[in-house]
Amino acid sequence: MIIVLKQGVSQQKIEELSAHLESKGVKVNTWFGTSKTVLGLIGDTSGIDIESIAAQDIVETVKRVQEPYKKANRKFHPDNSVIKINENAVIGDGSIAIIAGPCSVENKEQICAVAQKVKASGATFLRGGAFKPRTSPYTFQGLRAEGIELLIEARKMTGLPIVTEIMSPTHLDQFEEVDIIQVGARNMQNFELLKELGRIKKPILLKRGLANTIEEFLMSAEYIMSGGNEQVILCERGIRTFETYTRNTLDISAVPILKRLSHLPVVVDPSHASGIPWLVEPLSLAAVAAGADGLIIEVHNDPQKALSDGAQSLTPDAFDKIAKSIFSLKKALGS
Amino acid sequence: MIIVLKQGVSQQKIEELSAHLESKGVKVNTWFGTSKTVLGLIGDTSGIDIESIAAQDIVETVKRVQEPYKKANRKFHPDNSVIKINENAVIGDGSIAIIAGPCSVENKEQICAVAQKVKASGATFLRGGAFKPRTSPYTFQGLRAEGIELLIEARKMTGLPIVTEIMSPTHLDQFEEVDIIQVGARNMQNFELLKELGRIKKPILLKRGLANTIEEFLMSAEYIMSGGNEQVILCERGIRTFETYTRNTLDISAVPILKRLSHLPVVVDPSHASGIPWLVEPLSLAAVAAGADGLIIEVHNDPQKALSDGAQSLTPDAFDKIAKSIFSLKKALGS
Amino acid sequence: MIIVLKQGVSQQKIEELSAHLESKGVKVNTWFGTSKTVLGLIGDTSGIDIESIAAQDIVETVKRVQEPYKKANRKFHPDNSVIKINENAVIGDGSIAIIAGPCSVENKEQICAVAQKVKASGATFLRGGAFKPRTSPYTFQGLRAEGIELLIEARKMTGLPIVTEIMSPTHLDQFEEVDIIQVGARNMQNFELLKELGRIKKPILLKRGLANTIEEFLMSAEYIMSGGNEQVILCERGIRTFETYTRNTLDISAVPILKRLSHLPVVVDPSHASGIPWLVEPLSLAAVAAGADGLIIEVHNDPQKALSDGAQSLTPDAFDKIAKSIFSLKKALGS
Amino acid sequence: MIIVLKQGVSQQKIEELSAHLESKGVKVNTWFGTSKTVLGLIGDTSGIDIESIAAQDIVETVKRVQEPYKKANRKFHPDNSVIKINENAVIGDGSIAIIAGPCSVENKEQICAVAQKVKASGATFLRGGAFKPRTSPYTFQGLRAEGIELLIEARKMTGLPIVTEIMSPTHLDQFEEVDIIQVGARNMQNFELLKELGRIKKPILLKRGLANTIEEFLMSAEYIMSGGNEQVILCERGIRTFETYTRNTLDISAVPILKRLSHLPVVVDPSHASGIPWLVEPLSLAAVAAGADGLIIEVHNDPQKALSDGAQSLTPDAFDKIAKSIFSLKKALGS
Repeated sequence: MIIVLKQGVSQQKIEELSAHLESKGVKVNTWFGTSKTVLGLIGDTSGIDIESIAAQDIVETVKRVQEPYKKANRKFHPDNSVIKINENAVIGDGSIAIIAGPCSVENKEQICAVAQKVKASGATFLRGGAFKPRTSPYTFQGLRAEGIELLIEARKMTGLPIVTEIMSPTHLDQFEEVDIIQVGARNMQNFELLKELGRIKKPILLKRGLANTIEEFLMSAEYIMSGGNEQVILCERGIRTFETYTRNTLDISAVPILKRLSHLPVVVDPSHASGIPWLVEPLSLAAVAAGADGLIIEVHNDPQKALSDGAQSLTPDAFDKIAKSIFSLKKALGS
Repeated sequence: MIIVLKQGVSQQKIEELSAHLESKGVKVNTWFGTSKTVLGLIGDTSGIDIESIAAQDIVETVKRVQEPYKKANRKFHPDNSVIKINENAVIGDGSIAIIAGPCSVENKEQICAVAQKVKASGATFLRGGAFKPRTSPYTFQGLRAEGIELLIEARKMTGLPIVTEIMSPTHLDQFEEVDIIQVGARNMQNFELLKELGRIKKPILLKRGLANTIEEFLMSAEYIMSGGNEQVILCERGIRTFETYTRNTLDISAVPILKRLSHLPVVVDPSHASGIPWLVEPLSLAAVAAGADGLIIEVHNDPQKALSDGAQSLTPDAFDKIAKSIFSLKKALGS
Repeated sequence: MIIVLKQGVSQQKIEELSAHLESKGVKVNTWFGTSKTVLGLIGDTSGIDIESIAAQDIVETVKRVQEPYKKANRKFHPDNSVIKINENAVIGDGSIAIIAGPCSVENKEQICAVAQKVKASGATFLRGGAFKPRTSPYTFQGLRAEGIELLIEARKMTGLPIVTEIMSPTHLDQFEEVDIIQVGARNMQNFELLKELGRIKKPILLKRGLANTIEEFLMSAEYIMSGGNEQVILCERGIRTFETYTRNTLDISAVPILKRLSHLPVVVDPSHASGIPWLVEPLSLAAVAAGADGLIIEVHNDPQKALSDGAQSLTPDAFDKIAKSIFSLKKALGS
Repeated sequence: MIIVLKQGVSQQKIEELSAHLESKGVKVNTWFGTSKTVLGLIGDTSGIDIESIAAQDIVETVKRVQEPYKKANRKFHPDNSVIKINENAVIGDGSIAIIAGPCSVENKEQICAVAQKVKASGATFLRGGAFKPRTSPYTFQGLRAEGIELLIEARKMTGLPIVTEIMSPTHLDQFEEVDIIQVGARNMQNFELLKELGRIKKPILLKRGLANTIEEFLMSAEYIMSGGNEQVILCERGIRTFETYTRNTLDISAVPILKRLSHLPVVVDPSHASGIPWLVEPLSLAAVAAGADGLIIEVHNDPQKALSDGAQSLTPDAFDKIAKSIFSLKKALGS
């Protein structure tokens, strides 16, 4: 951390600030320029609140040099993290993992039919919403606990591990049988939920918030990891911009950036990023080309009757064609 | 809701869609144009998922005409809602309410000293963070339950009702003595929390999310209200944009828009919107001129040593001067 | 400018970079820390390209300490700049100037009628579009040269100085009789146009671009001023965000920030910022309360038949009421 | 265009509005619902100003059904447009075109050296800035006319057609020898410049503005095409968002969307979109996978000494490696 002081600050004030900083466990180097003085902090500055320093009346500006995340940081963990549920279901090992399924679990026939179809097309995980975050209190809120039961049935039938979203720490005991717990974009900074998830031993698929920076995204992963649970999967799912043609704007650059800054696996959700079924294929291919470890794709056996988010779902046949393109591209890139 | 169908849709398909829609309790009027057919839905469309309709393969485009919120809608509740804690502490009655206090409650001396100072300057509510949402797991997370105890002490001393933020439904029993529960921007779409708050009988101060539209903001208020708790205060606190000079961009237009669309009181948080103490005065005056019912202002007895968000806090003396300007402007506008 | 070098950089490389920087006219101070070396540049760094420095392979990060604008900078010009066309038409002297008129000049009757009405309500400048920037090539593009003639007629009739927009340096000779030349938001970084306007002796009303930061806005003013024309008026007119209720989002914070960073007068355009007539009054009052020197308001004698931008225009009667509120607020604030 | 009228509008007012609309050359169908009346406009609505209609006091809301662009619209021109300079330099024919070269032309040695290198790596066009749009008036503004002379020399040496940016219609005669004229992001809505470029017979590479929607982008292409010049190449180069890690956010979805809505070729500029050399490779691959017809990549023989934008330039060796990856991916996708 580099702290530029205002002009004409007294020697005593500089010493006071330095002493205050050193009391927080960092070493302070002072550089006296002709007009301004600069302090350089050496050591672990992650516990120092940059805004409190900036508020000191002798401080002109502060610049962080070190990343504020540690456990998620590739610098301290050069190898890729790999999340492995079983031999067939792995994320981050260099293959491309596909997590597919309907936005909402609706009934046994639906979820089992979709699970069998997506498995046949090469998906290695089944997704399905049981607890649904909906903008309106008047629209379908998901089957909740019953939805998780149905996912478990579909897993029994197909062997696909299941991924589903949690919305509150009070529901945690209902997720015991779930293989990967998803944290949705709207809860990316639900810090109390993140803390709870840091205490369990289950992979967490963390979606980037609609208005959150890459650094904030990694800090939310850090919340989970600092609690002891280092199995985090990062998911880019589009950010909010002025463009209205797509529901959100897929930030494709986030994929290589996250891979460089962190050792955690990165997956992309082209369905929610765009909200448009015919964009799923080109965006999936772009994600794979940019280095993503996996994709989350909405597939519904009858998208036009889907109880939620039908607009962005594909039929199993359309998904099958896309999965073929994805695997074919991955193969070409790998060789 | 107006649904424009694609060209050349068969009569049978139109009838099927109409029947499906009427089964959801709305009346469908059909208008056959020379090339396209338009359906007009009459009745309560709030339970109809606009995206599911848009996903039908015979549908070209859908436009909502009616607002999706009902309890928060001024159309169905023309008079202003007023939140009254006691004779001296009222929001929405035409006066300007000032909620002031430190970002974080730190100790008894601090919170009591600030409470006395802000009361003397005309604040009618005391705010203070006990549970703190922080981007980093390594920075101060608030005194939590102890912080609420200290706020209660400050209330005993000054009589000021207390406003503090909740971060999880699991903490609700610790908020029994709190006068107004705040939902922070990061939890505006924490729907499970909103549902819980809809079941209690206590005013909720709901902050707008950093990337949420005005309509989504009102839908979150609707979540609380549809549960039975109609005492909601809306708080504009800045949205995220490309501008980096300020921490967020205060959306001043949201004030008159919210007042027109809804009957709920609207307050503004110039401290978090800007993150810059010298902007608090001009932004407070702008908010009052635009029709806000109140302001939330961070005041700290020693901003430079504040454990969090010191950068945006004022001293009690600076606050006193600003409060004088605010009341003087309000008086001028009222006459 | 503070340059943080990467770890382990050789002494020779540091000296080479220092020599390169000193060749550009700045003095370089070097601070050797235990692990990293920091260079501090002293002197006028406005000609140094921060991105070229950041591209050096020995550089970790660069931070500008000094603002890159000079002529627009309040530090070097503490007093407010005042733009004075005549005794009655002044911007920046502590009064509130109102520039009013139709989006497009349509015919003599229209522009003269509006001019007389807005003058009677207290406007001191007449605005009207002759050259119109329109998103579509198929919609009305303005009366162009003829529009300027009609504005001159309206000025003869009322004495109000005229403000109108230029779209190309090739049109400059048609603006000789215009009192204040407006540069629209879409041309804020049309640098060749700005350079031409820097060579003339006429006040320029520069609108902020839809996606431009406050610093870029001041740099565009600097383009004009560095050419020799220091009569620049800054206009905040809304930025582009995700919010769709308003056409743009008025960045009210820009008003006090621009007033603090620069000595140039600042006006606000509530009509274009919102695109909604009923928002003009609250946004105008907010702008005055935040410290604006003036307002630009669209007024049309028959908004429903306006050839362009009718949606955001007011009738003269509605404008009269708003002007009264504005002057009354300004009086209250002044006392 | 669908116009929803307010409740209780009189029959006479409806007829007046219909007559007004029909006078503009469209046919109006009226649909009387139980409470509201809807007008459906049939025919060419591109000359009707949607905002003027919305301003009518009897109108509740207006929705455009038809795209406002015609010449750029794939509906009216199903086949891909192909821009062909010579047998070796084609954009839009199913191959991947690479336009490479330095941000700024600096001197003959530099531009010729880079041209030879990028040609050897497979680039088929040479880019180089002669007229440079720079945020600051105090930084290098380009060699201007001399820069174009140097590009012509490099073309003589290598045979590569040249692409360079125009900033003002007053410079047009200096571009006679240029093969493709580029319009920069800051000038995407410099409508007077677009009109001038519509009158010439030379391909135009039009960059998307930093805050412009896909529809506005196509409308700017329409400005050029409606003037008679249908040789337009669209370039996605990143939009402005809240994310600060990258200079801009590459909107990868724009590639397939533009290809679907329009027949014009689409290229991507990963250098300006990200501002980070190590992102050029993954973003280039993502663009190709998403369906782009070409790429514009900054290459400099000595990036660390580049006079502008060095930060985002690659060395020729780095570019060579990336070009190999691009061609290899394109081959894999094609098969």
